[in-house]
Amino acid sequence: MRIGVLTGGGDCPGLNAVIRAVVRKGVAVYGHEFVGFRDGWRGPVEGVSGPLGIDQVRGILPRGGTILGSSRTNPYKIEGGVDAIRKNLAALGVDALIAIGGEDTLGVAKKLTDEGIPVVGVPKTIDNDLNATDYTFGFDTAVTIASEAIDRLHTTAESHHRALVVEVMGRHAGWIALHSGLSGGANVILVPERPFDIEQVVKHVEHRFESHYAPIIVVAEGAMPSGGAEQLRNDKKDAFGHVQFGGIGTWLAAEIETRTGKESRAVVLGHVQRGGTPTAFDRVLATRFGLHAIDAVNDKDFGKMVALHGTAIVRVPIEEATAELKTVPPERYAEAEVFFG
Amino acid sequence: MRIGVLTGGGDCPGLNAVIRAVVRKGVAVYGHEFVGFRDGWRGPVEGVSGPLGIDQVRGILPRGGTILGSSRTNPYKIEGGVDAIRKNLAALGVDALIAIGGEDTLGVAKKLTDEGIPVVGVPKTIDNDLNATDYTFGFDTAVTIASEAIDRLHTTAESHHRALVVEVMGRHAGWIALHSGLSGGANVILVPERPFDIEQVVKHVEHRFESHYAPIIVVAEGAMPSGGAEQLRNDKKDAFGHVQFGGIGTWLAAEIETRTGKESRAVVLGHVQRGGTPTAFDRVLATRFGLHAIDAVNDKDFGKMVALHGTAIVRVPIEEATAELKTVPPERYAEAEVFFG
Amino acid sequence: MRIGVLTGGGDCPGLNAVIRAVVRKGVAVYGHEFVGFRDGWRGPVEGVSGPLGIDQVRGILPRGGTILGSSRTNPYKIEGGVDAIRKNLAALGVDALIAIGGEDTLGVAKKLTDEGIPVVGVPKTIDNDLNATDYTFGFDTAVTIASEAIDRLHTTAESHHRALVVEVMGRHAGWIALHSGLSGGANVILVPERPFDIEQVVKHVEHRFESHYAPIIVVAEGAMPSGGAEQLRNDKKDAFGHVQFGGIGTWLAAEIETRTGKESRAVVLGHVQRGGTPTAFDRVLATRFGLHAIDAVNDKDFGKMVALHGTAIVRVPIEEATAELKTVPPERYAEAEVFFG
Amino acid sequence: MRIGVLTGGGDCPGLNAVIRAVVRKGVAVYGHEFVGFRDGWRGPVEGVSGPLGIDQVRGILPRGGTILGSSRTNPYKIEGGVDAIRKNLAALGVDALIAIGGEDTLGVAKKLTDEGIPVVGVPKTIDNDLNATDYTFGFDTAVTIASEAIDRLHTTAESHHRALVVEVMGRHAGWIALHSGLSGGANVILVPERPFDIEQVVKHVEHRFESHYAPIIVVAEGAMPSGGAEQLRNDKKDAFGHVQFGGIGTWLAAEIETRTGKESRAVVLGHVQRGGTPTAFDRVLATRFGLHAIDAVNDKDFGKMVALHGTAIVRVPIEEATAELKTVPPERYAEAEVFFG
Repeated sequence: MRIGVLTGGGDCPGLNAVIRAVVRKGVAVYGHEFVGFRDGWRGPVEGVSGPLGIDQVRGILPRGGTILGSSRTNPYKIEGGVDAIRKNLAALGVDALIAIGGEDTLGVAKKLTDEGIPVVGVPKTIDNDLNATDYTFGFDTAVTIASEAIDRLHTTAESHHRALVVEVMGRHAGWIALHSGLSGGANVILVPERPFDIEQVVKHVEHRFESHYAPIIVVAEGAMPSGGAEQLRNDKKDAFGHVQFGGIGTWLAAEIETRTGKESRAVVLGHVQRGGTPTAFDRVLATRFGLHAIDAVNDKDFGKMVALHGTAIVRVPIEEATAELKTVPPERYAEAEVFFG
Repeated sequence: MRIGVLTGGGDCPGLNAVIRAVVRKGVAVYGHEFVGFRDGWRGPVEGVSGPLGIDQVRGILPRGGTILGSSRTNPYKIEGGVDAIRKNLAALGVDALIAIGGEDTLGVAKKLTDEGIPVVGVPKTIDNDLNATDYTFGFDTAVTIASEAIDRLHTTAESHHRALVVEVMGRHAGWIALHSGLSGGANVILVPERPFDIEQVVKHVEHRFESHYAPIIVVAEGAMPSGGAEQLRNDKKDAFGHVQFGGIGTWLAAEIETRTGKESRAVVLGHVQRGGTPTAFDRVLATRFGLHAIDAVNDKDFGKMVALHGTAIVRVPIEEATAELKTVPPERYAEAEVFFG
Repeated sequence: MRIGVLTGGGDCPGLNAVIRAVVRKGVAVYGHEFVGFRDGWRGPVEGVSGPLGIDQVRGILPRGGTILGSSRTNPYKIEGGVDAIRKNLAALGVDALIAIGGEDTLGVAKKLTDEGIPVVGVPKTIDNDLNATDYTFGFDTAVTIASEAIDRLHTTAESHHRALVVEVMGRHAGWIALHSGLSGGANVILVPERPFDIEQVVKHVEHRFESHYAPIIVVAEGAMPSGGAEQLRNDKKDAFGHVQFGGIGTWLAAEIETRTGKESRAVVLGHVQRGGTPTAFDRVLATRFGLHAIDAVNDKDFGKMVALHGTAIVRVPIEEATAELKTVPPERYAEAEVFFG
Repeated sequence: MRIGVLTGGGDCPGLNAVIRAVVRKGVAVYGHEFVGFRDGWRGPVEGVSGPLGIDQVRGILPRGGTILGSSRTNPYKIEGGVDAIRKNLAALGVDALIAIGGEDTLGVAKKLTDEGIPVVGVPKTIDNDLNATDYTFGFDTAVTIASEAIDRLHTTAESHHRALVVEVMGRHAGWIALHSGLSGGANVILVPERPFDIEQVVKHVEHRFESHYAPIIVVAEGAMPSGGAEQLRNDKKDAFGHVQFGGIGTWLAAEIETRTGKESRAVVLGHVQRGGTPTAFDRVLATRFGLHAIDAVNDKDFGKMVALHGTAIVRVPIEEATAELKTVPPERYAEAEVFFG
């Protein structure tokens, strides 16, 4: 067989490990050939591809990013996008695709399979918010980076009697905040799934200061006060007299400082969370995803996605993953609340 | 309730995270009191204990080791050991125990419960070889450390045209070798579950050198050549003319050098794998184990052990974990073999 | 002798290593006693202190922050501040002080010595902008953290064809930007010492994109476009329609995106750079500073500061360090410019 | 000009950073061309070389090892070696060489220059034992790795009431032991420069145990008991009844266990110390060495070596570095002794 591989959506440590495993097993065990499509769905739509063999995947296991590039191109939002894919695959003699990506990429994979273009999916999201798999690769790396940052901030909070707010990724799901907050010993963890009461947050902060310790608050970028986004409009002014909203972390630090009189600072971790070498956990998971994805292609088991169930890699229909977001359930959040304040 | 806590067996990053979670939830949610027994079962046998409260567990989440100390004391191997425990618990007013440890510690916990001393177990093994739980804390940390070492060794192997053998922990199970070898891109992985053919290993090594790359071989300390331990007797001599056997890694490097004529070196990672701060994964797992262990005690659900099933923490009878060792199954080893040579 | 120790100013990894070395050598070699003043000059001014002996410094070598706390209190800005210090030292029987801090703390140390309160200084600045010493502890840690972040960002820039701007510490001196940019392989490094031409920056960025690579721009928080701060007023609006200025990194990313049409993102590293465990380099430097500071006190060589000259720790008059800022000289910046574009 | 570059001797993080800086500045600023000789002096002797330009050095800054390979080939130990070099340089049109290496490589560089083959040297030794430069790159990385290992071992020593012996690199000079021991808070540091009294070591160990803490002993591989190597002959037997000597670390752990009755273990860090990505400190130093080496070639200032003096990179005659070994002076060792026991 001749198989095309592509990576779509945001950056995520482990993408190269998947690609390497697909190619290594595909070539050595099944004798398949590969085509590397560039920049997600843009590759097959525009027919942009390059060679993808043992040489191309050498040494990429520990490397962050993706050797194939990525984009958010969606063939269903491009006039004639699907036909272009069909034509380009035919021209290149490509029999099937492996699409590594998140909700959007997998959604396209599902639709294409339904229309006769055979695709196997590999789930990818730093946010861990895809259903049908226990974990996605990249998540452990993001949690690790955030947790190391929180470790570093504890001592500075303590020495300077400050509240420190750490904003981590997670627009719709609070998994990174939950796990890095648990791991880092945060005193409050705020997630999008649970609108927070700013007065309750302030109480935890004050309680912590009363015990002569300094609070660390971990907040997912998508967390919101219970009053909703309206609450966030405020009149903080910068050095130029301009009103600003720099994100929930910055807002929260300002609120805490105003309400408690204690110096408060925000740290916004940003893109550092999604780049660089994957953790060992993510390398193993991504490698196993790749090995099982090429098995699925070889079995012509299309429209499926590989997934982690316990310690086993299984195949599930793609729509199981994309039907709805996997958010933090109340009982998991309750585990963390034990440590608040 | 008044609950005793102890940690037994070898060192394992995450022990302190369990202790902290047990105490934090026990005090805050259930209003329990705690007694910290010293050095595993030695503590209750000899009546050596100290206070264990919010103050004692402050700041210990990221710390390796165990604030309670550890030992390999087994009350069933001490004359009157169990009676001594019974007497000491009564004297201290201790109603139940939480025992954090591996096969031996948990085996004692089960027997004691059967004899009316109520214990809840928390599984602990760096080697990941306990059944009934997907993973144990400490394992991810050991794999991470081994994987980082392998990353470092790749470039030195390459630059000096050398074979490098990395000996990792695992006397009876090859989990650390398997995962760190997969994560580190090893060219051969040798585990206790599968006696290896030294000639096949040499073939992989030579193949790798022929491709102008340098091989990394990851070997579990308990791996053996198919001829068995007899094979390991050899006549390598040190600077003082003494014959020596320094472990399987050293033996293997010498064999490879002799058989291929290529310079070969062994690195024995040793205790570095089991000390120091736990990874974020292990901190979260250990914390959740602690939270659920105190729930089990509170529910008087004794003779049980907390365990990870997928993403859920569940309770299982202790004997499920200790009945037999969880070794690397053939299909998991086969995944890794794709990358050999 | 009875010696007071204090730490002033911003957080800096290595403070605890200095304190430990002072106390360990002071007690073991000279038989001195110590008093730990709290929160910088606030301690002696308000008479807030605690015991400081072998027990207090145990285990603190690898820990970030300072066990003594810190503040920006300046006795010369407090009515009767110096007299209060004199009175409190007398009451506690303190013969001399060791003051660990930056320009402000050392400036006070110098003045107090001139007024008969004997102080030895230990230089501390994460920014490395103190004269009379080759390096200060904390700087290597900050550079290391920034460099690791840049390593992580390279792959994400590459995979997503984005420009990434990394804002690091350095209001008045660009040392952290220079060293982390050199270490991280940045394509442009901007420092406060050299106002930058935004058009030249854009040219470098475009050149980098033309070579099919993605640019990383490292910018010190105090860097400014050659037009000055006026340039920074802009009309970027956030989701609430508010104009904002989030710092030079954010401004620069927006400018680059506007001028090149390429997606650009800013990462502001913030407080993560100054917290947490010191690097080995900083632990050795801080330890040696501590050992030599207590020697100086023992020699009654007051008004001096310990300093690193090559590999030797020497004593210099405090005023040598505080007379003017040590900024990045043109020839050091020129070294980095070789790699621009 | 057309300039050959080679790397000789043992592995050392930072070699690639030097190569990159040489080529980047040589091409961009001076318009030079480069030839990459393979495997140290073997390259010019056997005429084995490859292209070395901007493309070859892209992305290598953070990578350990050397893209040029290395060996211990010495042209002066090969019949006609120097003539072969002369012939091969002429054939390739190479005007000058940059030789990056330790004592041996630099010694050859000096002799060749004297015989009319123009060479500029770049000092390289993980052991930091070259004179005429404050530090060499690679040393900080080795110290960092050893220090992180010691950090990890503290908690396991403590929890298990064990003595842990950490053997680090350093056959003739104890710099790595000294710095990593200071950084890691070792209780005893043993270096080749100072033969140790085993009874004194045991006293420190016992004192530490008496204070209810567990000792960490850092020993350089070349350290020796005051009785000399004869002391090391002993009759420890392995599982096969063979007498063994596994290195000073293993010997020391066995001695301590025998003499104190306390469980003792050795960890031999080995090659992990010299592989993998360089620290930020080493990347900056190596980069600056490279920039100044190409300046020296451009200035036709041959027979010189770049060196670090304070914060400046200077040029010194190669023979200043190779005349004698830079060992740990008594006053530096005395600094560390303050912390013994």
